Amino acid sequence: MKPNKDDILAAAERIAPFIHHTPVLQSRLINEIVGANLFFKCENFQRTGAFKMRGATNAILSLKDKAFQNGVATHSSGNHAAALSLAAKDLGIKAFIVMPDNSSKVKIEAVKQYGGQITFCEPTVKGREEMLATVISSTNAIEIHPYNNKYIIAGQATAAKELFDEVKSLEYIIAPVGGGGLLSGTALSTYYFSPTTTVIAAEPANADDAYRSFISGKIEPTNPKQTIADGLRTSLGTITFTIIIGHVSEILTVSEESIIEAMRLIWMRMKIIVEPSSAVPLAAILANKEKFRNKKIGIIISGGNVDIDDLPW
Amino acid sequence: MKPNKDDILAAAERIAPFIHHTPVLQSRLINEIVGANLFFKCENFQRTGAFKMRGATNAILSLKDKAFQNGVATHSSGNHAAALSLAAKDLGIKAFIVMPDNSSKVKIEAVKQYGGQITFCEPTVKGREEMLATVISSTNAIEIHPYNNKYIIAGQATAAKELFDEVKSLEYIIAPVGGGGLLSGTALSTYYFSPTTTVIAAEPANADDAYRSFISGKIEPTNPKQTIADGLRTSLGTITFTIIIGHVSEILTVSEESIIEAMRLIWMRMKIIVEPSSAVPLAAILANKEKFRNKKIGIIISGGNVDIDDLPW
Repeated sequence: MKPNKDDILAAAERIAPFIHHTPVLQSRLINEIVGANLFFKCENFQRTGAFKMRGATNAILSLKDKAFQNGVATHSSGNHAAALSLAAKDLGIKAFIVMPDNSSKVKIEAVKQYGGQITFCEPTVKGREEMLATVISSTNAIEIHPYNNKYIIAGQATAAKELFDEVKSLEYIIAPVGGGGLLSGTALSTYYFSPTTTVIAAEPANADDAYRSFISGKIEPTNPKQTIADGLRTSLGTITFTIIIGHVSEILTVSEESIIEAMRLIWMRMKIIVEPSSAVPLAAILANKEKFRNKKIGIIISGGNVDIDDLPW
Repeated sequence: MKPNKDDILAAAERIAPFIHHTPVLQSRLINEIVGANLFFKCENFQRTGAFKMRGATNAILSLKDKAFQNGVATHSSGNHAAALSLAAKDLGIKAFIVMPDNSSKVKIEAVKQYGGQITFCEPTVKGREEMLATVISSTNAIEIHPYNNKYIIAGQATAAKELFDEVKSLEYIIAPVGGGGLLSGTALSTYYFSPTTTVIAAEPANADDAYRSFISGKIEPTNPKQTIADGLRTSLGTITFTIIIGHVSEILTVSEESIIEAMRLIWMRMKIIVEPSSAVPLAAILANKEKFRNKKIGIIISGGNVDIDDLPW
């Protein structure tokens, strides 16, 4: 079920016409503050404003016998919904998106803008799954899971691959972890393309299910606490968990305050807009300066979709 | 007094070790909205967060007989103060900055952070000039004017030169205008390096002294109204005015609302942080869509120094 090296290489080639090759940025001032050499892979500049476009495009294009003719479907209120909508639009097919009826206006507008067809549901896991089943039975659309899918993971892996192609000899690579699609893809790209690099995950302490799963050796439920890093609230999937156990060295958890501080630092010093989830790796470095001192570190900036009318400061 | 082609080429070479070669970004979504092909030269990613670093560095390095040994001085509360401070620090000399005593905390902190030595003054033109004279007489520092200086203009001109080196056959280039350093540098680079490109200036209607000067043929005083584009409140200098009259095709003025709308568009679609002044050219395109339809247009994004705790929405 886990993507191999050829799956990632094929994904990179397959999605190239539909995604941006995003830039790698550096900041002298942030390097001075942390005492390390950081390379930010800026998926906030990706289409739809997040890395999710990579996996969504690869997953649709990988469907056997072009089984996407009746469209694709998912339940999501976040970046995956927007990415699946635009990836489907690029290919001239429909995307059916089940969204909780309490989703923010900004997120609903994003999905609409990219052409997704929204069906609202009750804001519970049961409500989402039942409505998705209903939508699929009436449309024959194919479900594309946001992360527990081999082709989604292979697609997300291409971000780290691009970073390794551009920056050699990274000692660490750090990605945030929610459902684990980005992290497991990052870990596999490291294993195949930069095996001397150590993979570290960063997670909000208030959403530390991946950390607890990593320690206990089984998938633990989500933490009921709230986190500002709304992209990281989901729990791991069976495929992403297995890859993470096998290829990630450590999971560092960070406080809400440190996420906001790191996000401000990136906004003010780098002049780029990143969402709270994207600031979690820098928060982990700031909280562990000795560990990372003088190291050459890659960071995956996962996205830039934040409501600029409702900032955390 | 006006820089020639060799002055600009020499400036580019002289400042290269001290500045960032900033990226040129595009946005498919903004192109769709305006119906044109826009290339944004992102000086918000420049050191100190603004193009001013180019001119300040060139002006110091161009002083005859290394007359900068006693330091440099200016009165400014904005990006020039920060740029002169960091450019001086790079060269191991002092920068004496006269700032009005009502300057915002954010601006004072920026100058301090880059090593500038601040003397506060009354917030009037007379207060600034008298205090600067006092500081210069006691330090023997050399005054570096923020824009009415041949070497400042030659330095600012290097931003447009880099854009022309990277993007060929631009039909228009648009820069905002305040004191005219960026605009006159842009106009000269266009004249020397891309003579088929038409130069247009964009200015807030509430700070339309450049527009009025352009029409009347003499330097008109500043407009007493307030504008959110705080970098564009100053009036033209004798050198910048002459260059603008000779090399700029048109000055377009825009409303405060349109500046905020364009700024939001850049933040949300491009995921980059730009200051209000930087959004003025896009506001001018949005207000004149027919004029610019299907054209290939370069835009100078002047800077990204904005107080993220006090946004205009």
